[in-house]
Amino acid sequence: MKGKPLASIVSAGLSKFGRLEGLYAREIFALAAKEAFERCPNLDPKKDIQALFIGHMGESYEHQGHTGATAADWTGLLPIPATRTECACASSGAALRAAIFAIASGLYDIVMVGGVEKMTNRTTPEVTEFLAMASDYPFEQWHGITFPGLYALMATAHMHKYGTTEEQMAMIAVKNHHNGFLNPKAHMQKEVTLEKALSSRIIAWPLKLYDCSLISDGASCIILTKPEIARKYTDTPIHIIGSGQGSDSIGIYERESLTSLAAAKFAAKQAYEMAGIENPMKEIDVAEVHDCFTIAEIIAYEDLGFCKPGEGGRLIEEGITTLDGSLPVNTSGGLKAKGHPVGATGTAQAYEIYLQLTGQAEKRQVENAEVGLTHNVGGSGATAVVHIYRRE
Amino acid sequence: MKGKPLASIVSAGLSKFGRLEGLYAREIFALAAKEAFERCPNLDPKKDIQALFIGHMGESYEHQGHTGATAADWTGLLPIPATRTECACASSGAALRAAIFAIASGLYDIVMVGGVEKMTNRTTPEVTEFLAMASDYPFEQWHGITFPGLYALMATAHMHKYGTTEEQMAMIAVKNHHNGFLNPKAHMQKEVTLEKALSSRIIAWPLKLYDCSLISDGASCIILTKPEIARKYTDTPIHIIGSGQGSDSIGIYERESLTSLAAAKFAAKQAYEMAGIENPMKEIDVAEVHDCFTIAEIIAYEDLGFCKPGEGGRLIEEGITTLDGSLPVNTSGGLKAKGHPVGATGTAQAYEIYLQLTGQAEKRQVENAEVGLTHNVGGSGATAVVHIYRRE
Repeated sequence: MKGKPLASIVSAGLSKFGRLEGLYAREIFALAAKEAFERCPNLDPKKDIQALFIGHMGESYEHQGHTGATAADWTGLLPIPATRTECACASSGAALRAAIFAIASGLYDIVMVGGVEKMTNRTTPEVTEFLAMASDYPFEQWHGITFPGLYALMATAHMHKYGTTEEQMAMIAVKNHHNGFLNPKAHMQKEVTLEKALSSRIIAWPLKLYDCSLISDGASCIILTKPEIARKYTDTPIHIIGSGQGSDSIGIYERESLTSLAAAKFAAKQAYEMAGIENPMKEIDVAEVHDCFTIAEIIAYEDLGFCKPGEGGRLIEEGITTLDGSLPVNTSGGLKAKGHPVGATGTAQAYEIYLQLTGQAEKRQVENAEVGLTHNVGGSGATAVVHIYRRE
Repeated sequence: MKGKPLASIVSAGLSKFGRLEGLYAREIFALAAKEAFERCPNLDPKKDIQALFIGHMGESYEHQGHTGATAADWTGLLPIPATRTECACASSGAALRAAIFAIASGLYDIVMVGGVEKMTNRTTPEVTEFLAMASDYPFEQWHGITFPGLYALMATAHMHKYGTTEEQMAMIAVKNHHNGFLNPKAHMQKEVTLEKALSSRIIAWPLKLYDCSLISDGASCIILTKPEIARKYTDTPIHIIGSGQGSDSIGIYERESLTSLAAAKFAAKQAYEMAGIENPMKEIDVAEVHDCFTIAEIIAYEDLGFCKPGEGGRLIEEGITTLDGSLPVNTSGGLKAKGHPVGATGTAQAYEIYLQLTGQAEKRQVENAEVGLTHNVGGSGATAVVHIYRRE
């Protein structure tokens, strides 16, 4: 049946994103879990939560893998099963799917899923190197290309093919910084002007400083139940009604197109079919998309069918995706302004949609939001995960 | 219903374990997948396989994460969803559970699950350091303790509490080397005498060289279907009838006991209950357990209820777990002799049980094996995964 709930969100938590000096990843995750636990007084975490999935991208930052067990320990959930998933920056998007499967299997009634990353303890060159592990070692990393470079290649291809402009990319930054300004948990709570974004220093042309997402510490989590019991824990359950994931070659040199992510289109198609969404622009009320670079948000509009290929730049220019537009995108500030603790991003997107659909998004609340979408990309697009959410 | 199949194995593949010079992890995984594909001619991998889960422990060995996508690419399975799981040395045990959930959810009919690790491209000190990332950074790694040291602490505690001897540990090595000698895919296909094992150089007392598992390259995979359709693909489906996973504090200093793994007992209890196993020693015909160090196999006997706490040493002394004993354990040679490419180990254990229950284990075949068990441990026991298998 189309649109049938796979699992339901009964609570969610998010740590502050930013430089969280002196805190280990496990401690940051506990902050997110604490909010989720406090938001849901009917739930006894130790008694009720039966399994944990956690997205975490890099063992290198803290010289620490085996994140599932530490996350379960620091949230008081031992001895339940706890598994880390890793799909680069889509690590917790993938964790969310694993948790949905666990619920839909009937083997578990209540599962916690989240993500975490500690990054600011490292220098920018170190972080750049660790992130690059999500690109192809023999054919990309070895030749010195990093993620800003890979996305710059996509940006120039998009400019060449469709006439997308640097101004349009900068408008994404302006929009997301405005939204981040309204989000007390965002890493960068400040507005940026078009002029400032356009004149910021070049990282990898055409991408400038303000076209790039942030290196942040942070964690996110949500608590899922099987739909039938969600009302035991909350009056405002949010149902997940579509879930899709796709994969592509890790090296962009092998792909058919540089201006679109095949994995994201595949993931969106699955999620839309499952949810019974036929016209995303009409049926989706609010979306969080993976703006690791501004060009990525423009490409996301197209891959998600919000507009035709090549029209992503027009969408932002016409203000359609701003907070007061007809389809607000990245109301949280996105990876651009909220921050991008990579492993935490997928379920942080779900957290924002949870707030929006339950009317808790405060200054950035979208009126009457009923259906939401998240789009979480790993690396340069070798993984993409799309979920659709509906308020009851 | 107890013993109801959760998912069914219709095929399986394993690369040679050992030093696979010049091959990347992705290529090694493709070798395992090739065997699984060839073993199952009724399956069209590209058309039929709908999702992939892969256990992979360390991004550091090849400076390469994002293993799901590369594994899907190198096995011709793009654009299906592909997710890496990491629970240290139990990474592919955890992947197997994620795959079971995906099947049991009804969302997928056919899923591939496996594991891989490339390790021999690094020096032993590097490998020791990378493996240590699965122990606690602030309270273990930082103080210089590595896995041989952690397991040596458990061994001495076991000797002190129960009188377990160095000879009993060496007997585990002798048994597993004998089995590995019979396994053409084992890293070490050679017998070892009790004298040689006992006189090998000390790594971390009481553990000597022959008490330690091997640093190997290797990959493993199995193909799972929902039970109802398994017969379309094979005449000998192996049903998974129990699945359990548990977690514990990552640092052994925080645990109640050093002579038992709470996570393994928790996992076994779940798996036995699901499978309806009441007397493991009577009902299990063959088992693969996580002998990363010989003491770990002795502790596994006890945690799995093959004997009472403290009697693990007696079990090996009485020959009960040898190939011609009443409950043969690690017929593959185990991590000790077959090798331990960490991410591959969980599904490599499942591969061996698949061979045993389908009568394909050749010189190491256990007569009339009907019910099998795998026991896969992450790190020093912060994760443990147990599965029960039954021939149709």
